Amino acid sequence: MSKPSASVSRSAPAFRPLDLIRKKRDGGELSSDEIGFLVRAYTDDEIPDYQMAAWLMAIVIRGMSRPELSALTSAMLRSGEVLDLSDIPGAKIDKHSTGGVGDKTSLIIAPIVAAAGVTVPMISGRGLGHTGGTLDKLQSIPGFNIDLSLGEFRRVLKSCGCGLIGQTAEIAPADKKLYALRDVTATVESPNLICASIMSKKLAEGIDGLVLDVKTGSGAFMKTEKDSVHLAELMVETGERMGQKMVALITDMDQPLGLKVGNALEVEECIEVMNGQGPADLREVSLELAAWMLYLAGRTPSVDTGRQLADELIRNRSALKKFREIVVQQGGDPGTIDDPKRLPQAQHRIPMLSPASGFVEAIQCEQVGIASLVLGGGREKKEDTIDPAVGLVLHKKVGEPVQKGEPFCTVHYNSDARLSSAQSLLQQAYRIAEKPRVVRRQLIHRVISGKGAQA
Amino acid sequence: MSKPSASVSRSAPAFRPLDLIRKKRDGGELSSDEIGFLVRAYTDDEIPDYQMAAWLMAIVIRGMSRPELSALTSAMLRSGEVLDLSDIPGAKIDKHSTGGVGDKTSLIIAPIVAAAGVTVPMISGRGLGHTGGTLDKLQSIPGFNIDLSLGEFRRVLKSCGCGLIGQTAEIAPADKKLYALRDVTATVESPNLICASIMSKKLAEGIDGLVLDVKTGSGAFMKTEKDSVHLAELMVETGERMGQKMVALITDMDQPLGLKVGNALEVEECIEVMNGQGPADLREVSLELAAWMLYLAGRTPSVDTGRQLADELIRNRSALKKFREIVVQQGGDPGTIDDPKRLPQAQHRIPMLSPASGFVEAIQCEQVGIASLVLGGGREKKEDTIDPAVGLVLHKKVGEPVQKGEPFCTVHYNSDARLSSAQSLLQQAYRIAEKPRVVRRQLIHRVISGKGAQA
Repeated sequence: MSKPSASVSRSAPAFRPLDLIRKKRDGGELSSDEIGFLVRAYTDDEIPDYQMAAWLMAIVIRGMSRPELSALTSAMLRSGEVLDLSDIPGAKIDKHSTGGVGDKTSLIIAPIVAAAGVTVPMISGRGLGHTGGTLDKLQSIPGFNIDLSLGEFRRVLKSCGCGLIGQTAEIAPADKKLYALRDVTATVESPNLICASIMSKKLAEGIDGLVLDVKTGSGAFMKTEKDSVHLAELMVETGERMGQKMVALITDMDQPLGLKVGNALEVEECIEVMNGQGPADLREVSLELAAWMLYLAGRTPSVDTGRQLADELIRNRSALKKFREIVVQQGGDPGTIDDPKRLPQAQHRIPMLSPASGFVEAIQCEQVGIASLVLGGGREKKEDTIDPAVGLVLHKKVGEPVQKGEPFCTVHYNSDARLSSAQSLLQQAYRIAEKPRVVRRQLIHRVISGKGAQA
Repeated sequence: MSKPSASVSRSAPAFRPLDLIRKKRDGGELSSDEIGFLVRAYTDDEIPDYQMAAWLMAIVIRGMSRPELSALTSAMLRSGEVLDLSDIPGAKIDKHSTGGVGDKTSLIIAPIVAAAGVTVPMISGRGLGHTGGTLDKLQSIPGFNIDLSLGEFRRVLKSCGCGLIGQTAEIAPADKKLYALRDVTATVESPNLICASIMSKKLAEGIDGLVLDVKTGSGAFMKTEKDSVHLAELMVETGERMGQKMVALITDMDQPLGLKVGNALEVEECIEVMNGQGPADLREVSLELAAWMLYLAGRTPSVDTGRQLADELIRNRSALKKFREIVVQQGGDPGTIDDPKRLPQAQHRIPMLSPASGFVEAIQCEQVGIASLVLGGGREKKEDTIDPAVGLVLHKKVGEPVQKGEPFCTVHYNSDARLSSAQSLLQQAYRIAEKPRVVRRQLIHRVISGKGAQA
């Protein structure tokens, strides 16, 4: 009268975590199913942190094959919701930057590309450490709401072709859990794990193509061009394997981009650029990234024509008009666009004076980022709150002449207690030489395009 | 009126775990203080499992320098109590085997060496997987108590010069906690971690010298001589750095040692050897190990004279008499020594018949161990209970002739359900060839002696 045992037994798990950890430990290659099992089981709390920590460490040291990396990215992507924007006509294209100091291009290029009729569903991150984050910059605009539900996000995208929000709980929960573990097990610094983390979140946006801005230099996470190129190649190939049009630009982060560093200050500088003004380097990198987005979207037949279109959309104020639309749609005060002085302002300003006459030979970019951080403009820990008003305005960039006693930058600050360490960091960051430095770094070091994105 | 802040602040921990994990991840060398900090903090539950798992995986892949290994061993040793036997006159010497099938020498050599007046404070382990354990064998003697407190152990040592117990909670608690974590994170198979685990427990015995029996071959954990030699060298050097006289014998485990496999069966075979009988290979390896112990203890001027003394102590029944003393001291039934049939006996015996005439070319030793395990003589998981009576008696060893239909071994079993898988394992384990195999493996492959133990 008993049931046959086969029908009552619970089906055994497909794989044993220990076998899979051992395989990677010994330099083996895991199958897509094996990686999918680990990621799903970990996300569902069926595998303990200590097993995943051992596996992650084995990945950091042993590396991953390209198929393994695609499988990991895909499993992390599938751990959450993937936006389906197929009811919105036309191409959907996004841009992702690996982060830098004064790196504010998202606020310029998203409006440009949306003004050209291409949908830009941009889910961004917060600043951490010496780098700023798009969300923090946007939140310096009074009222701007970055915490839209995916439903509201979709409505904004349909209405004005662009939305700028933060990661929601529905997007790639595996990445959230894995990142928290990597953060406490010294397994952050792995190109494979960085690639999977970025790509799993970006591909959840329901896009058709992605332009990567991989920073290189003293203010980037990847200090050398070799490391930047390696990460770029991993991301381009992974995106392509997953059906995306991909291109990566290796751009310079050996000094801050533009002249302003700090949240409200950077929004102000973006408005300057969209008004046809602002610093040349920020404008050039923004136009180049926007051009590639327009080209990947099929909106222009080439990158060159994309650059011309982007330039035109700035000149005729279409980009600025689109930015105003986005701000309004997301609850922000559009008055700040007409009058940027309505953005949060620091109570005090103090110039930093050059101790000698000569030429700016180098700016230690990471130290400039940390100076802004210690003023209150960034976060050391995720829980830290941000002062949107503080920051720096640079008056001199690399190669420019400076006189003794002339201000090379101005500190915007609210707390005397924080001023002195920022000042000393800035003093150390600037290197003044008697003679002008000859070698100028290119803004765009290299373009790494996928097969589907040859210019 | 407030106290100076320096005096009220709690002292910060000396190191940050994340920095130390990162250092090992990148192939760096940790200092003795850094390793000591990690081991102490983990034992005290101040470092979570996931951080230790990441560190262990980095060690498995990156390896350790010899100073790092000594520091790890020392930190694990210092995590618990270290016996002080200085009130017992003369040298204290122990032996440790890396484990094999039919590997029962401890029960023979501990009595020999103690009969020569050398103290042998032997803290042993249980069997796991295909290998047996000294404690399980001893517990097949009715009444034998291996769970002595360290105080009782000391009393037995003083009384008869030898005690045989299991690891107590006071000995190397760091090893206990680390081993449990290694077991579930695929970080067991590391010569460095194996060495630190063994040596931290053995050196807690308060000994002056240690003879290592490192097994090599199909029934050993280290299948190749290269791996066995590597582990032996690590242990010899680590012991020497910690002030011990050290020697390692690389001994053969390509077929079971002796003829009997299973707990009570192995005790019976040890009594045979101590009665001047028993198989030659078991007697030879036991004499060689005992000889080295006597030499390290300074009891004999050379290993050769040690071998002669050991042989004499068997001939004149002093070793058997000492074994009886130990059994009595630890609560066991000495009647089993006079009449081994009083040891637990299996209900059923069945011979395994050779399918062909020829010569035994090879015995897959690990499979023989697993056959004993599946009969109930071993443990797959720590929690498994053991049937002391079951096991195997081999009638043919490698190189011996066998006729078709002649029994090559006899299975002693209590459960019909377990018989057939044991039978099929044994059938697979024996390889019969038409012609006799020429190459005979040496019993003692190599001797690796520390500087303080040159023969």
